[in-house]
Amino acid sequence: MLSEFDLIARYFTRPAHPGGPVLLGVGDDCALLAPPPGETLAVSTDMLVEGRHFFAGTDAEALGHKALAVNLSDLAAMGARPLGFTLALALPAAEPAWLEKFSLGLLALADAQGIELVGGDTTRGPLNICITVFGSVPERRALRRDGAAAGDEVWVSGTLGDARLALEALQQKLTLSPEALQAASPRLHRPTPRVALGLALRSIASAAIDVSDGLLGDLGHVLQRSALGAVIDADALPFGKVLAQQPVSMQHEFALNGGDDYELCFTAPVALRASVQAVAAEAGVALTCIGRITPEPGLRVTDASGQTLNLTSRSFDHFARS
Amino acid sequence: MLSEFDLIARYFTRPAHPGGPVLLGVGDDCALLAPPPGETLAVSTDMLVEGRHFFAGTDAEALGHKALAVNLSDLAAMGARPLGFTLALALPAAEPAWLEKFSLGLLALADAQGIELVGGDTTRGPLNICITVFGSVPERRALRRDGAAAGDEVWVSGTLGDARLALEALQQKLTLSPEALQAASPRLHRPTPRVALGLALRSIASAAIDVSDGLLGDLGHVLQRSALGAVIDADALPFGKVLAQQPVSMQHEFALNGGDDYELCFTAPVALRASVQAVAAEAGVALTCIGRITPEPGLRVTDASGQTLNLTSRSFDHFARS
Repeated sequence: MLSEFDLIARYFTRPAHPGGPVLLGVGDDCALLAPPPGETLAVSTDMLVEGRHFFAGTDAEALGHKALAVNLSDLAAMGARPLGFTLALALPAAEPAWLEKFSLGLLALADAQGIELVGGDTTRGPLNICITVFGSVPERRALRRDGAAAGDEVWVSGTLGDARLALEALQQKLTLSPEALQAASPRLHRPTPRVALGLALRSIASAAIDVSDGLLGDLGHVLQRSALGAVIDADALPFGKVLAQQPVSMQHEFALNGGDDYELCFTAPVALRASVQAVAAEAGVALTCIGRITPEPGLRVTDASGQTLNLTSRSFDHFARS
Repeated sequence: MLSEFDLIARYFTRPAHPGGPVLLGVGDDCALLAPPPGETLAVSTDMLVEGRHFFAGTDAEALGHKALAVNLSDLAAMGARPLGFTLALALPAAEPAWLEKFSLGLLALADAQGIELVGGDTTRGPLNICITVFGSVPERRALRRDGAAAGDEVWVSGTLGDARLALEALQQKLTLSPEALQAASPRLHRPTPRVALGLALRSIASAAIDVSDGLLGDLGHVLQRSALGAVIDADALPFGKVLAQQPVSMQHEFALNGGDDYELCFTAPVALRASVQAVAAEAGVALTCIGRITPEPGLRVTDASGQTLNLTSRSFDHFARS
C-alpha cells in the first residue's frame, strides 16, 4: 500500500533546478522562491472538481496537463513569467496507474514551461485538484483588467468555440461526426496556455484576460473594471476549425458564450496595431481584431453589416441553477 | 440565488491595505504581491476535506479559522512573516449563513495576522477548502528541516495531546466529562499558529517543523532531513491540561502520536538555551526542552529514569489502511 509520503516522493518530487528561482522545493514546511529582483509576484489558484470541471473517468494524463494549463493561462493573461506551482490533491484512493499518468501530464507541461512543482498536499477525498501558480512580472508592465481605454481595439488569440462544441457532443447535447469530435476534443482536454503571447504583449496590451468562462462574460470583466463598453463584430470572431463547419447561429453562440477556450482577449491602442501583428508572428499564434472599446458602458454584438445581434453573456457560474 | 461572483464579492473581497505587500488583490487574473526587498518568498498549501479533516457539520466560523491557521503554522515553522493567502473553495451549495460564518472566522484570523486574502476560486462540489499562504523570510534565516546538529536540544512549544483527546472523545473512542471536553476542544477546532514564535526563533533554532501529524512523525522528518537521531524524554513532554489528568500511558501516546497540535518542534544549540528561554518570554508561549539530537540515526523515547519506552511513530497517513 502506497503511503502519502511514498506517493509524494514517487510521483511528485524531482530535484530542484540549480540556479533557478526555487531555492527549496518539496519536502519542508514551505517552499522558498526568489522572484527576479525588481519584479513582483503574480499568484493565481484554480480548483478542478470531478463531475464539475471534468467527467469522471477523464484520461488522467490530459487532466494533469489541463489542471496546470488553466492556471498558466491566468499567468499569461497577466503577462507574468511562470516560476513554479503547488499542487493539492484529494484522491478517493492512491492508484499507482492513475497517479503515474496524472503526474506525467502535469510534469510534461511543467517541463515545457521550465517550471517546478515546489510543494503540495495530498489527502483522501472526492477527486479534487487545486493548483496555485506563481509567476513574476515588473509591476508596471502587468496586464491588468482595468487598463482598457475608449477607442482601443479588442483582440483575441487563436480560435474560439471548439472546446464547448466538444463538451456538448460528449454530453450528447449535439451530434458531431467521430472525425469532428476527434478534431475538437483537444481544445477541451488539452488547452494551450498562451504564456509566450502574454509575455510578448507586456508593452502593447492595455488590458487582458483569459477566456475561460466565455468571451462575452470575460470581456465583461475587463469592461467593468475599466468602466467602459465595447462593440464586438460576431462575424469577425475566429471560430474553431470544427465550429466553422456548423450553422452561423451556433458559431456566434459558441464563440461568444463558449468556455474552456483559454485564449487571451486583450485591448490595445489602434496606433499599436502593427506591434500586435508583429507579436502574432513572434508568438506563433493568430491574433484577430474583433471589435472596439467604447466610452459608453455595455457590450453590443453586431454582425458584419453593423446590425445588433440579440446575444447576451451567459458566462459560466458554478452556483447558478442549471 | 447567490452567483459565484456575488459570493466572492460579498464574503471574500475587501479593499487592499495601502502600502502593504499586496499590490493587486481579488478581481484580476492574478494577484500581485511584493515581498520585502532582499527576502525570499515562503509558500505552503493545505487542503481540508469534509469527513477527513473535519466532521460534517463542524461550526463554519471555527472551520474558517482552522483552515487558515494550519497554513500559517507552516509559515511559522519556516520562520516566515505572513503576507497573504489564496482560498479555493468547493461547496455543495452557496449557503449565505454558512459563508457568513466561514468568512468571519477566516478573515478574523487574517486581520489578527495583518494579512490579506489576495485571490481564489469558488466552485460547486463536495466541501473542500484549499488555502495557499505566502510569507517572506531572509533566505539564510529560514528555519529548515535539515539544519539540526548532533548535541542540539529538542524543544516544543505550548502543550501537546489535547487536540487528539478531543477528537477521540468526539469520535466516542473514549469518554471525557463535558467540562474536560469543553476545555480540550479549542485545541482541535481553533488552533493557534505560532507565527510570532517562528519569527523570534529565526536566529536561534537550527531546524524546525510544525507538529501537525504527531510529534514523533514530525520530528522524524527533521531527523531524516538532517541525517541524525534523537532521544526524547516522554516524562518531560508538556501535556495538554486535560491530557495531564489522564493515565500516564495515554499521556505518552497522545503527546507523542497526537496530531492537530500545531505547536512548533525545533532544535537549538545548547549554548543558546538562554536565548530560547528569552524567546519564550518574548513570544508569550511556554517552550519545553524534551530531548537531544544524537549522531546515530533513530528516534528513542525514554522515561525520566532513562528507561527506553516501546513507543513508535504512528504519524497520520491519509492513504494508510485505517
